[in-house]
Amino acid sequence: MADSASKPHNGLLSPEEKEKLQALRHSAAHLLAAAVTELYPSAKPTIGPATDEGFYYDFEFEEPISENDLPAIEALMQKIVEGWRGFERLEVGADEALAMYANNPYKQELINEFAEAGEAITLYKSGDFVDLCRGGHIDGPADNLRHFKLLSLAGAYWRGSEENIMLTRIYGTAFFSGAELEEYLQQREAAKERDHRKIGQEMDLFFIDEMVGKGLVMWLPKGQIIKDEVEKLAKEKEAASGYLRVATPHIAREELFLTSGHLPYYAESMYPAMQMDDSVYYLKAMNCPHHHRIYLHQPKSYRDLPVRLAEYGTCYRNELSGTLAGLLRVRGMTMNDAHIYCRKDQVKEEFKAVMEMTMDYFRIFGLENYWFRLSKWSPDHTDKYFDEPENWEYTQDVLRGVLEEMGVPFVEADDEAAFYGPKVDVQFKSASGREETMSTIQLDFVAKKRFNLSYIDESGEENHEVFVIHRAPLSVHERFMAFLIEHYAGKFPVWLAPVQAKVLPVSDKFNEYAIQVAEMLRGQGVRVELDDRSERLSAKIRDAQQEKVPYMLVVGGQEEAAGTVAVRSRDSGEQETVGAEEFADRVVKEVVERKA
Amino acid sequence: MADSASKPHNGLLSPEEKEKLQALRHSAAHLLAAAVTELYPSAKPTIGPATDEGFYYDFEFEEPISENDLPAIEALMQKIVEGWRGFERLEVGADEALAMYANNPYKQELINEFAEAGEAITLYKSGDFVDLCRGGHIDGPADNLRHFKLLSLAGAYWRGSEENIMLTRIYGTAFFSGAELEEYLQQREAAKERDHRKIGQEMDLFFIDEMVGKGLVMWLPKGQIIKDEVEKLAKEKEAASGYLRVATPHIAREELFLTSGHLPYYAESMYPAMQMDDSVYYLKAMNCPHHHRIYLHQPKSYRDLPVRLAEYGTCYRNELSGTLAGLLRVRGMTMNDAHIYCRKDQVKEEFKAVMEMTMDYFRIFGLENYWFRLSKWSPDHTDKYFDEPENWEYTQDVLRGVLEEMGVPFVEADDEAAFYGPKVDVQFKSASGREETMSTIQLDFVAKKRFNLSYIDESGEENHEVFVIHRAPLSVHERFMAFLIEHYAGKFPVWLAPVQAKVLPVSDKFNEYAIQVAEMLRGQGVRVELDDRSERLSAKIRDAQQEKVPYMLVVGGQEEAAGTVAVRSRDSGEQETVGAEEFADRVVKEVVERKA
Repeated sequence: MADSASKPHNGLLSPEEKEKLQALRHSAAHLLAAAVTELYPSAKPTIGPATDEGFYYDFEFEEPISENDLPAIEALMQKIVEGWRGFERLEVGADEALAMYANNPYKQELINEFAEAGEAITLYKSGDFVDLCRGGHIDGPADNLRHFKLLSLAGAYWRGSEENIMLTRIYGTAFFSGAELEEYLQQREAAKERDHRKIGQEMDLFFIDEMVGKGLVMWLPKGQIIKDEVEKLAKEKEAASGYLRVATPHIAREELFLTSGHLPYYAESMYPAMQMDDSVYYLKAMNCPHHHRIYLHQPKSYRDLPVRLAEYGTCYRNELSGTLAGLLRVRGMTMNDAHIYCRKDQVKEEFKAVMEMTMDYFRIFGLENYWFRLSKWSPDHTDKYFDEPENWEYTQDVLRGVLEEMGVPFVEADDEAAFYGPKVDVQFKSASGREETMSTIQLDFVAKKRFNLSYIDESGEENHEVFVIHRAPLSVHERFMAFLIEHYAGKFPVWLAPVQAKVLPVSDKFNEYAIQVAEMLRGQGVRVELDDRSERLSAKIRDAQQEKVPYMLVVGGQEEAAGTVAVRSRDSGEQETVGAEEFADRVVKEVVERKA
Repeated sequence: MADSASKPHNGLLSPEEKEKLQALRHSAAHLLAAAVTELYPSAKPTIGPATDEGFYYDFEFEEPISENDLPAIEALMQKIVEGWRGFERLEVGADEALAMYANNPYKQELINEFAEAGEAITLYKSGDFVDLCRGGHIDGPADNLRHFKLLSLAGAYWRGSEENIMLTRIYGTAFFSGAELEEYLQQREAAKERDHRKIGQEMDLFFIDEMVGKGLVMWLPKGQIIKDEVEKLAKEKEAASGYLRVATPHIAREELFLTSGHLPYYAESMYPAMQMDDSVYYLKAMNCPHHHRIYLHQPKSYRDLPVRLAEYGTCYRNELSGTLAGLLRVRGMTMNDAHIYCRKDQVKEEFKAVMEMTMDYFRIFGLENYWFRLSKWSPDHTDKYFDEPENWEYTQDVLRGVLEEMGVPFVEADDEAAFYGPKVDVQFKSASGREETMSTIQLDFVAKKRFNLSYIDESGEENHEVFVIHRAPLSVHERFMAFLIEHYAGKFPVWLAPVQAKVLPVSDKFNEYAIQVAEMLRGQGVRVELDDRSERLSAKIRDAQQEKVPYMLVVGGQEEAAGTVAVRSRDSGEQETVGAEEFADRVVKEVVERKA
């Protein structure tokens, strides 16, 4: 990854700093294994790497442990580390190593692999603890390895394969200072509070139903409202940008996917085949093949291009059931998809328009902490890439040129492109601090060949240089909704809020006026609820606050007499009295403007 | 089917008239077979029944014939019938019959079946022609069988099974008078002109792509616009009527469909199973099981009911590939679906509201030629129906009561209900004269039992009497679009028209002003196209007329100078000059009002 001229973003570590932190965390993993094997002598350690967030170690336990056991392990780690002066490297023969791990088939498997590959077998020793390890530790662990914390437990298959035994993974993290650890833990707590699964449940936005299936989202009415608003935004923007909407089936014959190349290479990521009376059918994992067929349905002239085909298309992918989680790892996903078919001389303008649309969306959602990553081919690994060197160089120059012209922060990554063309990813720091790819603008100069895409040029000749841009600025609904929920911590702006206003009569006496107000608002298109329970006002306010409703409308005698509502804002906490109709106008205006 | 007090509709025949017409047409099928076997001695006749539209006869031909051969067959029919005085009934033994049809395995198969069933084997003879037949002919064929016409050819599997040989079906029709035949043929020609497949292709609305698969509709941008407008209408009306939108996956685990009862009974109509790592999955053929699970997700109180869950959900059904045709027989269908969960005391109000919504839609689309059909159980066939006699009687009375109260035309049909409850169908005469069911309002008191639906009543008890209403007033998109295309003959009202206005500069000199006008209109949300070809105005007008664009905007020097457009209406053919902005306002108003 080559840094571009413009500094991409703050908060990332230099490669040296990153390496040091990795060494600290990897050392902490050793320490964890030392404590676990002392507390649970029958536990079999397997592997324990550092990660971007900390470290983990996978063990086979004789008896399952729970998160309640973590404090004791952590306490023992604090004790053990006192005696650790350094990490002593020992190189041993395979037989000796195998003998040491006579009771541990996992380590034996690793040792045998190292031996077969002709690699040296190394052990690292600290205090009394020895572990099979390739190295990468800190100096002076007793002094430096003080600020760590065990975080959670999870199941993990040995070597990630569901055909293997399920081990117990212990997660932890470590930093060089207590302040950094404290900050991380606070951020983690905050992220937990923002967790889209937690908020999704509290606000009745969606659920996963075991009877319907894993990784398949059931959108409840309130979640559907948000999703519909996002989709409406996309449709408006796309219509204004000359996109044409289409609708295609969720399945197709294998012939289509053989043509696109998804079969046989991608078959494992697709749902299994369905044999019908006329052909074999598959659920689509992508919308592009269907769109290419729509492009081909009518002959195109140079004047027809660019053709921009858009569809919020639902795709299905065969992810392992054990890897599915909330909205972030799903099997069914509805994509903010479009494919732009353009001439070579139109690539720049089209790419730039997609960039602008993407940034316009982010402005609307108040997202600022993002940068771009240009993934390029490598002329040294031409076997990995579709063999059109001129198009690679041309399009990469175009993409870089636009990124520079727009003055946006970006990095370049060599040898990271897809087989079929360079791409630009939009990178984010999520609310929980993870770096994530929100969306991708992907160039494609293979589709034209596989699908025989063409147009008639000005001289009446058939031209096959049809460039395809795959783009989904708003990602898939599932992922984007998870992101939005965490971004807003459930406090959606008015235009997205499932309930925009809640009418709270101060007592039952004013229920009738409250109903009048609610009905007037509903008539104006405001999403309104009425709390006519015989509860005290303070309880009603507390509940509405918990439901994260932007406006609470308190109504009592004064309001009824004057035809007003006392508006209490979720965000500012302030209260002001306005005419009921005036309030309706205000909400409608906020929705139209999509006020942040 | 019992006639109700109110006369349902005109144009239907009495049972006696219908029987006479059937006999005429069945006689015509004999005549067809006589002519075919005389012209093609090696052709093997199979079966030839009368239909609602005429008759057909299936043959095995040694050499394929084409529609060009039909006039010769028809001419020979006219000649042969001269010698036909009547139909002579002959009863023969099975052996004799088998010997007569030594070269015809089809007739032999039928003869063997009749013999096995102990039925008499009868032949009918007219002139020199004898056919295996159960009877039902007219008297004096030479006098009465004069007004017939052969219409078309099609392939048809022997006995409708795709495992059998493909035969050649010759379609024809016959009437008692030349005037009736002429009227039918004219109507048929008009229907051909309105055929949704023909118009769908001419207007670029949709297509079926063999590579994607049979019965799977690919919606082109212009078709998608119409579909989106219909969907928008439904969402508006449903929102105003208190429906809540949800979104559910297109697949589910077999557990769900075992619970609903779709499996195993309905398995043949579903796409094949997909074995995943955690369960067996199926494409959904209906949305109800998913919606029931959403109902169940949160506990409900009597105050929460009715719950109205709406989704334009796409379902997939395994229809035989040979039966698929255009938009009317498809495998993938997107339903204007909703399920209403209500208490027993709410059934009336909810059913009535659905009726009103349905009729409101029909008013908007200018549909008048419809009536209702109430399908009831039969207390004499209780084995066919879910065993809750009280609920059958109660709900049937409620439905009938509402139909009467609303004063709409309806018929009642005994013993025609579904297993799970009575229903009301909306019946139409289509543009081509067929009687069709457009949509159904279905009551269901089995779902509550299968899914254990309940609510907490006023006394805090769990009440299991949750009545479900399945309703899809706008049918499935595919079927409704076919209907709309034929209803409007492609001349969609402005709010539905894919292109609402086309700007036609009288010469290239005015292209710039034409672009200005088009952009202004586009900015106002008008769907506008520009014809800037260097063609004569008359050619541009002719083409726009063929494309069925509601408004042609002619612009030349005068219009440019005055900032006007000369509006030519598709429907009235009249032309008037108005300000360009004024025209935009007019179109926007027509769209908002959904002017017919």
